Order: sequence, then C-alpha cells, then structure tokens
Amino acid sequence: MIVKTIKSYKRIEAIDITNTISKEAENIGNGIMLIYVPHTTAAITINEAYDPSVMDDLMEKVSSLVPYSKNYRHLEGNSDAHIKSSLIGNSVQLIVENGNLILGRWQGIFFLEFDGPRDRKIFIKVLR
Amino acid sequence: MIVKTIKSYKRIEAIDITNTISKEAENIGNGIMLIYVPHTTAAITINEAYDPSVMDDLMEKVSSLVPYSKNYRHLEGNSDAHIKSSLIGNSVQLIVENGNLILGRWQGIFFLEFDGPRDRKIFIKVLR
Amino acid sequence: MIVKTIKSYKRIEAIDITNTISKEAENIGNGIMLIYVPHTTAAITINEAYDPSVMDDLMEKVSSLVPYSKNYRHLEGNSDAHIKSSLIGNSVQLIVENGNLILGRWQGIFFLEFDGPRDRKIFIKVLR
Repeated sequence: MIVKTIKSYKRIEAIDITNTISKEAENIGNGIMLIYVPHTTAAITINEAYDPSVMDDLMEKVSSLVPYSKNYRHLEGNSDAHIKSSLIGNSVQLIVENGNLILGRWQGIFFLEFDGPRDRKIFIKVLR
Repeated sequence: MIVKTIKSYKRIEAIDITNTISKEAENIGNGIMLIYVPHTTAAITINEAYDPSVMDDLMEKVSSLVPYSKNYRHLEGNSDAHIKSSLIGNSVQLIVENGNLILGRWQGIFFLEFDGPRDRKIFIKVLR
Repeated sequence: MIVKTIKSYKRIEAIDITNTISKEAENIGNGIMLIYVPHTTAAITINEAYDPSVMDDLMEKVSSLVPYSKNYRHLEGNSDAHIKSSLIGNSVQLIVENGNLILGRWQGIFFLEFDGPRDRKIFIKVLR
C-alpha cells in the first residue's frame, strides 16, 4: 500500500491529484489502482480537469443539495461533509496499462475536501 | 465468493457491518475485498462509525432529497429506494494488509437498507 | 483492456448493457470486472432491469435534483451532466464465477447518458 499526503486550504475544495496518481502508475506496469480515501468528510471523484469551473459547479451544487447547517443531530457541525462524502464516494478504481494511467480525454482525478482545511491522506493499492 | 446474510428491521436503516467484514479480512492476508450488494433497493457506504447520529443524518438527508412517494412511474411504491441505491452505490472496495482491514480512524462499513425490513445478502470477493 | 462502444440517442438515457458485459464474462472464468466510463458527462450504475420505469424514475429524479440550466459557471451548457456523472459514479465492479456474471435477481447494468446523443465507450479490465 502506498500512502500519499494531501493538504487542503479551504473548507470546501476540489484538489486535482491526477499528476500524483499518474506518477505512481509508471511503476505498476499493468493492473488496477484502487485510490482509497480514509476520511469520512472527504471524497474522491473523476471528472473534467480541463475547465476548473466544472469542479466549482459540482462543489456548489453538492453544497446546495446538502447545505452546511447546525441543524443536524451530529453535534460537530460537519454532518453536511459526512453526507457529501457518502454521496460522492470514498474510492475510485483506475486502469493502468504499460505504466500509463488510462483516463478519458477530459478526465482528471479530484480529492474533494468537504471539511477543511486539513492534512489528508490517500491510500493506493495496486492489483496486477 | 463469500456470502453473508444481513437482517434489517426497519424500512430505512443503516447497519454497521464493520465487524463482519473485519473477521473475513483475517483470512485474506494481503489484497482487496470487493463488498457487493446484490439488491436494487439497498446500498453500501463507508462513513463515521463512532457517533451513530452521523448515519441518522445521512439517512434523513437522503430521504429528504429522494422522498418516499407513490408518485413515481414504478408501481411497487419503492422507487425512492431504487434511486437512493444508485446515488450511494452498491459496492465498496477495501484494502487488506496482513489480515487487517485498512480503515481510517473513524471509518466503518454500513449496509444501507432503503426498503426493509428484509433478509439481505452481501457478496464478498477477494483479489490478491 | 477491452473496449466496447455504446451509442446514445437522447440527451438523457439509461442504456441496459447487461448482455454486453455478460458475454465478456464468459471468457473470464473467475475474477472481478471493472467497468470504467472514460467520459465526464455519463455514468454507470447497477439497478433493477426488469421494470424500465425504475430507470425512468431515476433519471427524472436525478434531473430534478440537478436540473439542466445555463446558470452554471462552466460555459458549455452541460454542467448538469458533469455533476450527475460524479453523483452516480463512473465505474462499477462485478464478480465473475465460472464465466458467469454474478448479479442479484433483479439487477442489470446501465450506462447513463447525461449529455447525448453521442458515441460512447466503456473500458473493461479483468482481474483474476
């Protein structure tokens, strides 16, 4: 298992981690990478990396569907972040061939911070 | 493939299955476990297991976004459950190292019942 | 990696690809299939395949939660499709045993088009 650290700077932030994952893929040859987020107030998704406004739209829409509020049962004030995490999901799987990460033309990989700023981690597990 | 049975007692219920999965991991050594829900009105997610109110908040919010209603095309009265299932997802992947399930500090694994009470199953497939 | 082409005919459309995946499974024996969507305005999900109105309900509900609108930052007019893609997810994992795709009784596999009509692809990676 490979562990990578990620630093977020805002409460809600989409961080493009495509380059980090792509570099790890070089050593893999052929297989699948599981990218696993060990946190409960963050998520990971694959979406357009070319125009950053796509991620702005995603984060705004998710925040309007699940708004920040003190009116949840969980008393830490971050229930919205937990809910967003389960709606998006905490892992993605990626195909690697000949050391190349296989992504669609417009795809990038994004760590989604919903309760930052924080020091975060991702776990990478490779299967061949 | 390993098959495990789960019993739900309410229409909507989050069931912590972390211990069940953790016990299976002991026999695995190193690899990935795919936990697969073979139902279309249930789901599986990874989120905070320490304070149960997090799951209460999640289930309430998902039910307010996709309310129970007879006004769907599907005539069995459980379209809300099908939609919730696809929003959350029907599988998770977990890393196992030296027989230990790798989870973040606050993470647990939850079977989400959206149309219970029912006898349910999960399928576990291991890749090394 | 196996590449399959899919053709959509509407802007929003759920396409049942269960037979396509099932045929590929015949050559696999035992393992996991990762079905990966390399697009950022489409998704993939597993849900009821028996009554098509379940998918109609899903697509309508997702479209009411994330409506088509020009009022997003991304100027191509399809931000709703990108957001829907991340809410549902761009991959599923399936168990194969003795060449048989393991699905629950009511389950089918659906390619979800959110910005068609288009020529689309799915990537299939097998791990044994």
